[in-house]
Amino acid sequence: MAGKKKVAAFDLTADDAQYLALIISFVRGARSVTRPEISEATSLSRSLSTKFIDVACDLNLLKNGDIGQSTGGRAPRLIDFNENAGQVLVAELGATGFNVAASDLTGTLIESAYVEANVSKGPETVLALVEQKFEEIINAHKLKNVWGIGIGVPGPVEFATGLPVSPPIMPGWDRYPIRERFSQKFKVPVWVDNDVNLMALGEHALRKDAITNELIFIKIGSGIGAGILTHGRLHRGAQGCAGDIGHISIGVNEVTCRCGNTGCIEAVAGGLAIARDAEKAAQSGGSAFLSKILKSTKKVTIEDVIAGSENGDRWCVETIVKAGKDIGAVLATLVNFHNPSLIVIGGSVSNAGDKLLAAIRESVLNRSLPLATRDLQIRLSEYPYQAGLSGAVEMVINELFESETLRRWVAEGRPSPTVVHA
Amino acid sequence: MAGKKKVAAFDLTADDAQYLALIISFVRGARSVTRPEISEATSLSRSLSTKFIDVACDLNLLKNGDIGQSTGGRAPRLIDFNENAGQVLVAELGATGFNVAASDLTGTLIESAYVEANVSKGPETVLALVEQKFEEIINAHKLKNVWGIGIGVPGPVEFATGLPVSPPIMPGWDRYPIRERFSQKFKVPVWVDNDVNLMALGEHALRKDAITNELIFIKIGSGIGAGILTHGRLHRGAQGCAGDIGHISIGVNEVTCRCGNTGCIEAVAGGLAIARDAEKAAQSGGSAFLSKILKSTKKVTIEDVIAGSENGDRWCVETIVKAGKDIGAVLATLVNFHNPSLIVIGGSVSNAGDKLLAAIRESVLNRSLPLATRDLQIRLSEYPYQAGLSGAVEMVINELFESETLRRWVAEGRPSPTVVHA
Repeated sequence: MAGKKKVAAFDLTADDAQYLALIISFVRGARSVTRPEISEATSLSRSLSTKFIDVACDLNLLKNGDIGQSTGGRAPRLIDFNENAGQVLVAELGATGFNVAASDLTGTLIESAYVEANVSKGPETVLALVEQKFEEIINAHKLKNVWGIGIGVPGPVEFATGLPVSPPIMPGWDRYPIRERFSQKFKVPVWVDNDVNLMALGEHALRKDAITNELIFIKIGSGIGAGILTHGRLHRGAQGCAGDIGHISIGVNEVTCRCGNTGCIEAVAGGLAIARDAEKAAQSGGSAFLSKILKSTKKVTIEDVIAGSENGDRWCVETIVKAGKDIGAVLATLVNFHNPSLIVIGGSVSNAGDKLLAAIRESVLNRSLPLATRDLQIRLSEYPYQAGLSGAVEMVINELFESETLRRWVAEGRPSPTVVHA
Repeated sequence: MAGKKKVAAFDLTADDAQYLALIISFVRGARSVTRPEISEATSLSRSLSTKFIDVACDLNLLKNGDIGQSTGGRAPRLIDFNENAGQVLVAELGATGFNVAASDLTGTLIESAYVEANVSKGPETVLALVEQKFEEIINAHKLKNVWGIGIGVPGPVEFATGLPVSPPIMPGWDRYPIRERFSQKFKVPVWVDNDVNLMALGEHALRKDAITNELIFIKIGSGIGAGILTHGRLHRGAQGCAGDIGHISIGVNEVTCRCGNTGCIEAVAGGLAIARDAEKAAQSGGSAFLSKILKSTKKVTIEDVIAGSENGDRWCVETIVKAGKDIGAVLATLVNFHNPSLIVIGGSVSNAGDKLLAAIRESVLNRSLPLATRDLQIRLSEYPYQAGLSGAVEMVINELFESETLRRWVAEGRPSPTVVHA
């Protein structure tokens, strides 16, 4: 089938659209299946599932594949998911640079790249670079059917509007219309979310195991944040700021946080806080390892503390362990409250590895209910460099193949999904 | 229609059963509606909705009602929910007594009663009293169609099996088969859950406003627990123990909790903890009000502390305010993490009213993110005596009218729902 042909336009009921979404979602996950398998997995009758498989084929999302294995009788023809019908572009903004990628419709990345760009240079500068990189990728791979764009941002986002809301490490970005900018430039729908939410979605999509259905992703970077999955779906909360755990108090403490309170977990155990303490330790001689680095490079970073910890520098080891215990104390509270099955630790500080993880685990097990920790797993991210990008792809595809979007797509008979942002 | 007649038996697909559930749920909420209203509200075609309205009438759940108002043309006949087709029996067990009730299918209570019985007397004694009270109610109201039983328990419950799991204030109840006992006695399906979960469900069902969709119900009784609603549904967590917040640490503290840790919130601000401190204050003369009570009644209870607070006794006021602030500090953490729209405070200690509430609010607002508290409401339960019972009714009805139950009910052609407990 050609990419740009006009498809038959007709009206689906809301329920029909849900059937269609169900079938597309199942075949997308399974890649290649028989018609009876589709009917069984979706609990739809053979005639209904046949009807909506045909609609999905007309949309170019499904296609006839090879002949499958016979189970007695005539060998069935497979139905394949057409992962190349459209593409998705994503960017994951960080404090000092951004990742971009293009993906097919299964979430397999076609290309990814990293570009240095300090987020403090403001949205005009940084997003112009993102646009330029998107265009390079489009040209290099001759992408003709970009269907949607996903952007991850290191700060709070009002998901419904795609606006950053007072992001602390992003001066000049407050309520900047990221969605409108990309939407006007590339003429496709755009979704924007907090980076940690996308990491949680990405870990879920990449790992594909059931334990990730009740997942809390903890990003320990400059700050500390959480992404929460319930039944495999993001829990965003009433204002969309669920998971904003960096300013949870860990009790009496003299350190004043950028938010004005004292004792916030990220002002004690976040990457910025550790680097600040490390500089003092380097100056005072508290850490011989860091003093040497300060003398030669004139600064001390969180990466230096992690290196010191690996080299057995006592101050660095103790600092990483203390950060882990403090973070674990907060997680213990969240475990009692939320009862997750998996906690994934990511972000730059998580490169400290097992020393950090062991301290977090000890603290959680000490302070949580036995029933809540009976089968709880606490692990480092398995996809530290890919979870955010893959989560952004997942967000876009979830929105594109959502039943209301499919209903409008079929009704308008266009060659690609139509999304009207509110 | 007669109650016990055999209904037509035929097979529904899983999707048909979902349509049927959707229609029943809508008419149950609206009570009395026209066929076009049902079709519109459920997004089902007129022919499909007509088909399943007929099935629901055959099950005796819907029935033809009065002639409605004409909107031009022939006046339509209303479809009514048949709230008297079946009844539900519920019991809410507490530390020193239990509530029982019978309800129709809309959740309107037919009768409720309170019986004193200390839960520490063990399951055989207490549950025999519950059974006796159930039978009295059945006889007094000549209930002929009890379809299900719901039991609330003041401790952790494994929902899938209905077994209490090491409930701290219920010696002898660990893994006692509550479900099997009632199921064998009354020959109906039985569901058991933690009392706080049921209070959250009940507050949601009774208030009927959208803000209760993202609700955290906090019960401050002898202990402290939470029930969590997300999108209007209970969040139970991976092991079903979500909301067990009583042992969240509020930092360094000398008080040892019954769990063995120190600094647990319920060991500091729960009803038992306050009563323990109150007795000391009465003995030492720290509270003149409580000393007088101790002298005359030989004991001091949480109710005495609340009375003292209302009478302006300084120790009592300060104790209530401190409990509120400590609880608020824990809630601030949960607000940052979960971002609810409404927190409801219930349980015996909540009778302290505005003094407690003001302290909780102050603490939450001080320590939570501005975005998370922008529209957050923190209120006392509007239904302190009914939320638990109504939540138990809601749990039973949700399970009875769930699509898989309806599918089996239609397939077997029985006069009442069939539930096979795993």
